[in-house]
Amino acid sequence: MKSRIVLRAPHIPVIDLTHAITPFVPEEAGYWLYCCYPQFPAGSAHVAVVDPGVGSARAIVVLCAAGQYFIAPDNGLLGLIAGSRADAVAYRVEAHALEALQLAPHSATFHGRDVMAPLAAELAAARVTPAQLGPQHTLKPGRLRPAVRAADGSVRGNVAVIDHFGNALTTIPAAAMGSMQRVQLHPEGRSLRLVRTYAQAGPAECVALINSAAMLELCVRQASAAAALNVQPGHEVKVS
Amino acid sequence: MKSRIVLRAPHIPVIDLTHAITPFVPEEAGYWLYCCYPQFPAGSAHVAVVDPGVGSARAIVVLCAAGQYFIAPDNGLLGLIAGSRADAVAYRVEAHALEALQLAPHSATFHGRDVMAPLAAELAAARVTPAQLGPQHTLKPGRLRPAVRAADGSVRGNVAVIDHFGNALTTIPAAAMGSMQRVQLHPEGRSLRLVRTYAQAGPAECVALINSAAMLELCVRQASAAAALNVQPGHEVKVS
Amino acid sequence: MKSRIVLRAPHIPVIDLTHAITPFVPEEAGYWLYCCYPQFPAGSAHVAVVDPGVGSARAIVVLCAAGQYFIAPDNGLLGLIAGSRADAVAYRVEAHALEALQLAPHSATFHGRDVMAPLAAELAAARVTPAQLGPQHTLKPGRLRPAVRAADGSVRGNVAVIDHFGNALTTIPAAAMGSMQRVQLHPEGRSLRLVRTYAQAGPAECVALINSAAMLELCVRQASAAAALNVQPGHEVKVS
Repeated sequence: MKSRIVLRAPHIPVIDLTHAITPFVPEEAGYWLYCCYPQFPAGSAHVAVVDPGVGSARAIVVLCAAGQYFIAPDNGLLGLIAGSRADAVAYRVEAHALEALQLAPHSATFHGRDVMAPLAAELAAARVTPAQLGPQHTLKPGRLRPAVRAADGSVRGNVAVIDHFGNALTTIPAAAMGSMQRVQLHPEGRSLRLVRTYAQAGPAECVALINSAAMLELCVRQASAAAALNVQPGHEVKVS
Repeated sequence: MKSRIVLRAPHIPVIDLTHAITPFVPEEAGYWLYCCYPQFPAGSAHVAVVDPGVGSARAIVVLCAAGQYFIAPDNGLLGLIAGSRADAVAYRVEAHALEALQLAPHSATFHGRDVMAPLAAELAAARVTPAQLGPQHTLKPGRLRPAVRAADGSVRGNVAVIDHFGNALTTIPAAAMGSMQRVQLHPEGRSLRLVRTYAQAGPAECVALINSAAMLELCVRQASAAAALNVQPGHEVKVS
Repeated sequence: MKSRIVLRAPHIPVIDLTHAITPFVPEEAGYWLYCCYPQFPAGSAHVAVVDPGVGSARAIVVLCAAGQYFIAPDNGLLGLIAGSRADAVAYRVEAHALEALQLAPHSATFHGRDVMAPLAAELAAARVTPAQLGPQHTLKPGRLRPAVRAADGSVRGNVAVIDHFGNALTTIPAAAMGSMQRVQLHPEGRSLRLVRTYAQAGPAECVALINSAAMLELCVRQASAAAALNVQPGHEVKVS
């Protein structure tokens, strides 16, 4: 994939975000991309390929949001980014546009290399616009949705991924919490103290904090919150 | 190694293929390189260091094939690439040539850093040619050989590596299969259906397909074919 | 972190040394950096973030040594490099200097991204000098210290890290050993033969050698020395 990018856009820096996504879980890739894209400048093109449906009829899409491009299979990967940005517009990549770019896929099993990577190079180099690739497209929603405000005023979201420290990262953004301080697992009701930094947690204490991506995170100082709290991706979290 | 490359060839892009090779298995590195090199342009220089014999008398070689350079220890790593290309010519790197390039090794245990990486930079920058490095050399064959046609017309190859999904990648290229459709484990005779994409396999069905590197691969949709079929590198596969 | 570096210094190559440090062990990162920095040219800026105290009052420091810059939290990570270089001078990074560079931290939990990575870009681009960032600073010592000469003339150091092959890398440099040949675990007294290369060890023989970073290393050919010798980081090693 990188050789295909460098061949088409040799002067554009290429940055690896991660190669450690759980196989077959597009939403996990989408969550990390959601956490990282604000660090990138306008015009950046992100390629995210977790593609269990490669070779089937699922579309390849380009999402435009925050002045950046996100190229991925239409399998839920981009649902969280699209659902959280008012300026999000997605386009479906059509075969005739790929042919015009000499990007007709040469393999049935690796569209990441044959289509998505070189397409990202073309977009980053500003040699093509998303609207030239195909019609606007409604993305398939993924399992991760932006957090919502419930009737009682609380905000409800979910654990999105467990990182390699065992921290449980949620879909609840700091911006949605305002001055709320009460963090509870739902439905069991267990409460966690909201602290400012990892260092403020006592030994073995499960706490919540706003992490570097401005998202609510559940953690234990130097241990696994996922194990201590018995939570997995999908577990509901409530803030009030 | 990367610093040594960048110091000698700062304007040439450096791409990591993998750092996840099983320790002490040169053929595994050689297989992935065999799968990836067709994506690179002429003039590319590939460094592949899986080097259990570092410090012993094994040669360092440069293989020229497909207009590209492959720098590696002579320990079987390059056997599959060399055996499958009619234009392959290998050269043995000699001490006097290294001295001329100010590349005499400074350590007894890391020729990858001290010799092979900077030599790749010199080759990629076209400041030296392989023939200037030493005489032509017959490579030590590795455990992986290109697939062969048997007396009964069938094509026989081997499982080369198990990838991190559990897919069993073989040494049998699509080009050698022609219109053959019957894939069997050998000698037990178990048959696998040849499909076009992962998505065409039923749940838990073991199938074969032509993968993105145009090689025959055994897989199970979203599970480990190596476990389901009880195969390991070396297991024979027959196509007829 | 990489996007922040590239935004401020797009023409300076960025090299990953490792992302595989044991969580919460700054000294392990410091040891690998100590092994690798001699391969980099003067003016290089190294960012090393293993930061269990992020958000607490621990300082961010810039160490100058060998004409290079090392940016890290003041948590012991840089102790081995600083303790082994006569030209080492450290500076504490102060808030007003960060504000002048528009680097006031935006998050309480990721100073690596918000402060240290962009600061490395500014130093590598020579747009700021360490002395402009704050006063000279005495680094907090870490658990790893340079090897010392004992009263009986022997040199004593420690196992620093176990690498992914199971090799036990020590803090004893070849330069401190001179012509000494006798390597022993301390206090149990088990002796290891000093060889020149991995290839000189017999099957399953535990040996010592000078590795590619010019440090004493304990190893077993194609197996784990840490398991065979039952050593862990901190275990004392004596050379006489």
